[in-house]
Amino acid sequence: MENEKLIQPKVLKGFRDFMPQDEILRAGLIEKLTATFRSYGFVPIDTPVLEYTEILLRKSNGETEKQVFRFEDNGHRDVAMRFDLTVPFARFTAEHKEELYFPFKRYHIAKVWRGEKPQAGRYREFVQCDFDTVGSDSATSDFETLALMRAALNAIGVEKIKIHLNHRGVFNRFLLSLGCKDKSEDILRIVDKLAKIGAEEVTKELTEVTGDAAKSSKILEYIKPLSSFEETLGHIEALAGGESDDTKRLKDIFAMMKASGIEKTYVLDPSITRGLDYYTGVVYETFLDDLPSIGSVCSGGRYNNLAGLYTKEKIPGVGSSIGLDRLIAGLTELGLTSAKGSYLDAEIYNNGEGLEVYMEKTASLLRELGVAVEVFPDAVKMAKQYALTEKKGVPFGILIGKDDEKNGTLTLKNLKTREQQAGLSVMQAASIILKKN
Amino acid sequence: MENEKLIQPKVLKGFRDFMPQDEILRAGLIEKLTATFRSYGFVPIDTPVLEYTEILLRKSNGETEKQVFRFEDNGHRDVAMRFDLTVPFARFTAEHKEELYFPFKRYHIAKVWRGEKPQAGRYREFVQCDFDTVGSDSATSDFETLALMRAALNAIGVEKIKIHLNHRGVFNRFLLSLGCKDKSEDILRIVDKLAKIGAEEVTKELTEVTGDAAKSSKILEYIKPLSSFEETLGHIEALAGGESDDTKRLKDIFAMMKASGIEKTYVLDPSITRGLDYYTGVVYETFLDDLPSIGSVCSGGRYNNLAGLYTKEKIPGVGSSIGLDRLIAGLTELGLTSAKGSYLDAEIYNNGEGLEVYMEKTASLLRELGVAVEVFPDAVKMAKQYALTEKKGVPFGILIGKDDEKNGTLTLKNLKTREQQAGLSVMQAASIILKKN
Repeated sequence: MENEKLIQPKVLKGFRDFMPQDEILRAGLIEKLTATFRSYGFVPIDTPVLEYTEILLRKSNGETEKQVFRFEDNGHRDVAMRFDLTVPFARFTAEHKEELYFPFKRYHIAKVWRGEKPQAGRYREFVQCDFDTVGSDSATSDFETLALMRAALNAIGVEKIKIHLNHRGVFNRFLLSLGCKDKSEDILRIVDKLAKIGAEEVTKELTEVTGDAAKSSKILEYIKPLSSFEETLGHIEALAGGESDDTKRLKDIFAMMKASGIEKTYVLDPSITRGLDYYTGVVYETFLDDLPSIGSVCSGGRYNNLAGLYTKEKIPGVGSSIGLDRLIAGLTELGLTSAKGSYLDAEIYNNGEGLEVYMEKTASLLRELGVAVEVFPDAVKMAKQYALTEKKGVPFGILIGKDDEKNGTLTLKNLKTREQQAGLSVMQAASIILKKN
Repeated sequence: MENEKLIQPKVLKGFRDFMPQDEILRAGLIEKLTATFRSYGFVPIDTPVLEYTEILLRKSNGETEKQVFRFEDNGHRDVAMRFDLTVPFARFTAEHKEELYFPFKRYHIAKVWRGEKPQAGRYREFVQCDFDTVGSDSATSDFETLALMRAALNAIGVEKIKIHLNHRGVFNRFLLSLGCKDKSEDILRIVDKLAKIGAEEVTKELTEVTGDAAKSSKILEYIKPLSSFEETLGHIEALAGGESDDTKRLKDIFAMMKASGIEKTYVLDPSITRGLDYYTGVVYETFLDDLPSIGSVCSGGRYNNLAGLYTKEKIPGVGSSIGLDRLIAGLTELGLTSAKGSYLDAEIYNNGEGLEVYMEKTASLLRELGVAVEVFPDAVKMAKQYALTEKKGVPFGILIGKDDEKNGTLTLKNLKTREQQAGLSVMQAASIILKKN
């Protein structure tokens, strides 16, 4: 082997390694998101990374098809790596509908793969966090989804957000009254680009599609949010021909928001359409107040037929997805992330006096008391040992000498204040470490 | 779409969905393992699921090559899905050796893929939990790895285990003194089969390889554990030509075990060899006392050259891997697993009186106090709502009537004892729920 040529160690284009600091950050965010999902009654499931291509791609457009990692496996099956968590969830729900209970609420935090052109903030492997409630068409499910989006983002320290929501049903009713129902897909697609291309261009494209400048300016009037949720709601209700189940739904949701004291986070924004024809009720997107330019970090909506490709049963639902890796990029840009280099509370330094047995005994006792601790493996120079604990952000150091071995003691050093206490028992040291942490 | 043929929703052969109860169980075990890894100073990293095939397969044998999911990606790269976490870690360490610090301790809990013939307990997608310390050849690293194996398994409720360990260096020294050094790979491979094929067959095969029945019975004498760690150590030390660094290493490790009071878990078992030529120092396997038949659930060893394929630098290390899915299968067989159906503390029932706004307000307040709670989404029959909370194992139910809305109260029901308390404030309810949980 000595003579073999070395292989250059490198990851594939568009893929990434996560160094400890990055992975500690991501794992910490996932733990907080998970805890929040659970506190709202969501449960985890898991599905395979590989699925039959037919299952993943039947409903997809050409763009997705080009991006998917697809191949023939050793058993000559046409398989693909999942490109989102929604399609596998639809397949899962249809496959297990007899074993599941409804309403069913699941979260799924996992990697997905898309062979996109790599660019800043775009990777071919990334983590999505999805949560959906299926088997219910209730206002409470809509509301709890919207409330959970806010709670989940707050839980990871993202408090300055606005969640823009709209109702596809009200929009459709408006287009019907305008005589444009048959062009609604085109219109929704154009409106969806408002933030990107601006009102003028939208007007132009709408006029092309509707063939009527008056209609186009009516649509523009419709999609403009007014100064408050209630005002906007009154406005679109009037334009859509008066009260309906759909506007009542928005009113119910808003009443729940107000009762829970969280209404300020939400903007009724009739320009939010979400391109996919899949959505039928509320739709929403979330923007960071201080960095709207990265786009929505958490989006979703209500649909009335989750798994229509796989079962005749119509399963309605409502859900949302957090693009975690994009969100982390945004938070990092805003300086809102801080990651430690390890989970250690203390490091037992190795001074080379051959006291490893006592050092390991001390480490065992400390761990039993709840202290995360390691023995520095090698008796290298103390300066190197100190430098490493500093790099890892370890708060306490423990020094052990021959007298300590005799007396069952240790010296504890606060690595921040440099304060040092000799002759402590393991119990005393643990209590100081756990208090200060 | 109504007229399209439905696609049968099914997973690929050898792959699995995890239903909530199974995933809650697995997630709970992973959380406990993670906490234990962290308490020993290990940090997480992440690597891509896909790698260049050249990187994954260069050193593999034909068996691995047949099993790997390998394909040409859209950019005509020869890529493959990882089949373990060791090879990617070797690539990672070589690629980032300038940014990393050493000794470096990482854990990695993630899925790997092997296109094995599916059979009971064998899947093509499964989770491995690896932890390694690299950049140190110290007895403390060996010991902390062995101690962590025990602590991690204990943390997930697996206490009745024996960790069998051996030292490859001592074994090699013995074979050298026996004049069989040149046949050591064959001999190790045969000895490794002892548990599977029995002493008689091993003797036969050894005699074939060594061409000498006396040598073969000498090897059999060597690999037989005696009644205690120390006795066995004395025995193999004598047979291997007296004290060496390697036997001293075993003595050091054993002294640390005794000082930490955990020595009873470890058996010095000279028949443990671990097939891979990669290992150079201690090697170990872990067996469940009550189910040895499922084989080792946590194995590993010390190696002196982690990343020799990718860098000239010799990086020594020691590590271990838990086959989590196999372990779960074993625990399930032993009746040692218990999984709940949800994380909810309480369910707010929906009695159809139109009090959803107050119900959601109550849910918000309860969550702020730390209670995991949901509002039952639809006002279906109470019997159905009760049945579902029972299925999910929710401990408390909350009933809300019109008077409660007026008075800011609720009725709390302990779903186990059926005990019910009316007119409680949200605070009172939360304190009962959190105390009882």
